[in-house]
Amino acid sequence: MKVDLGVRDCLYPLPTTLVGSLVDGKPNYATIAHVGIMAYVAVSVSMGKMHHTNVGIRENGTFSVNIPPVGLVKETDYCGLVSGRHADKSTLFEAFYGKLETAPMIRECPLNMECRVIHTVDFPTHDIFIGEIVSTYCDEECLRDGVIDFVKVQPVLFVNDRRYWGLGEPFAEAWSVGKALKE
Amino acid sequence: MKVDLGVRDCLYPLPTTLVGSLVDGKPNYATIAHVGIMAYVAVSVSMGKMHHTNVGIRENGTFSVNIPPVGLVKETDYCGLVSGRHADKSTLFEAFYGKLETAPMIRECPLNMECRVIHTVDFPTHDIFIGEIVSTYCDEECLRDGVIDFVKVQPVLFVNDRRYWGLGEPFAEAWSVGKALKE
Repeated sequence: MKVDLGVRDCLYPLPTTLVGSLVDGKPNYATIAHVGIMAYVAVSVSMGKMHHTNVGIRENGTFSVNIPPVGLVKETDYCGLVSGRHADKSTLFEAFYGKLETAPMIRECPLNMECRVIHTVDFPTHDIFIGEIVSTYCDEECLRDGVIDFVKVQPVLFVNDRRYWGLGEPFAEAWSVGKALKE
Repeated sequence: MKVDLGVRDCLYPLPTTLVGSLVDGKPNYATIAHVGIMAYVAVSVSMGKMHHTNVGIRENGTFSVNIPPVGLVKETDYCGLVSGRHADKSTLFEAFYGKLETAPMIRECPLNMECRVIHTVDFPTHDIFIGEIVSTYCDEECLRDGVIDFVKVQPVLFVNDRRYWGLGEPFAEAWSVGKALKE
């Protein structure tokens, strides 16, 4: 039987990310799992308006999206517990910069994207920043024949049961397994 | 060492969904994993402009997002292989309707959202439909104390290595495990 849950986001799991920006010249990071991909070339990050990181994104029109591995789950969670208004998160990680000079990326994260804001969707409680991907960086050891190996990336998945989950195993080929139903 | 991959979306895994709409009065479904959550109350679906499903979304201003379980991976993949222009996908699943009368949801999927388009972001290749969630439906057996149990949902995760992946295990508490670093 179907139960009507009312308005309940249930699009899980999503990858837990650290969104970075430069606030007053200093890297700051927010823990954000409400993210999305758009048209292969852009990403959305849904950021509560209270976040200190938003100040830097608005100021510079740039941000980074960093995918932390399971081994950084404590640091990742910490960034969601403490605001940059009250704590200096700039020294938690080693920052590096790409083509944009104002999107601090996290060296300890195996995957990083530097993004330029191309659109903002304004919700009463959240700024949704849509950023075109300027460049993506990957740890060399997480690449296999040019394809990102997510077994090595070990992303931290978020489900709204307030827990972090691991990634399971691949079990079927996309654009393939459904061919059996074609005739 | 970091390798610059250029513009490469790497925000994976994302949940594979079936996006439904009514085209010429008939349910049609597209397989979409480029999705996102916005402000807890809305979702985005990034849909290539060639999709037949988009016609119905534009016509009615409504769509559904359905989360298929691992057991429906063949049907899910099939919906991404074959266009509703050439094949009738309306009989693949049992459709049901909620408060909106034009957003066909899939009974065989444990989670369903009916959505009303509130915003569209136009990319050259894709329509990004942002839909406010009107209501969410869940199979009773996938609920535990009112919380959605994703072990039972068994979502099909998509990674851009052209494979479907399973969900792993929960391994840490969110808004909690990072407290260790607070002092």
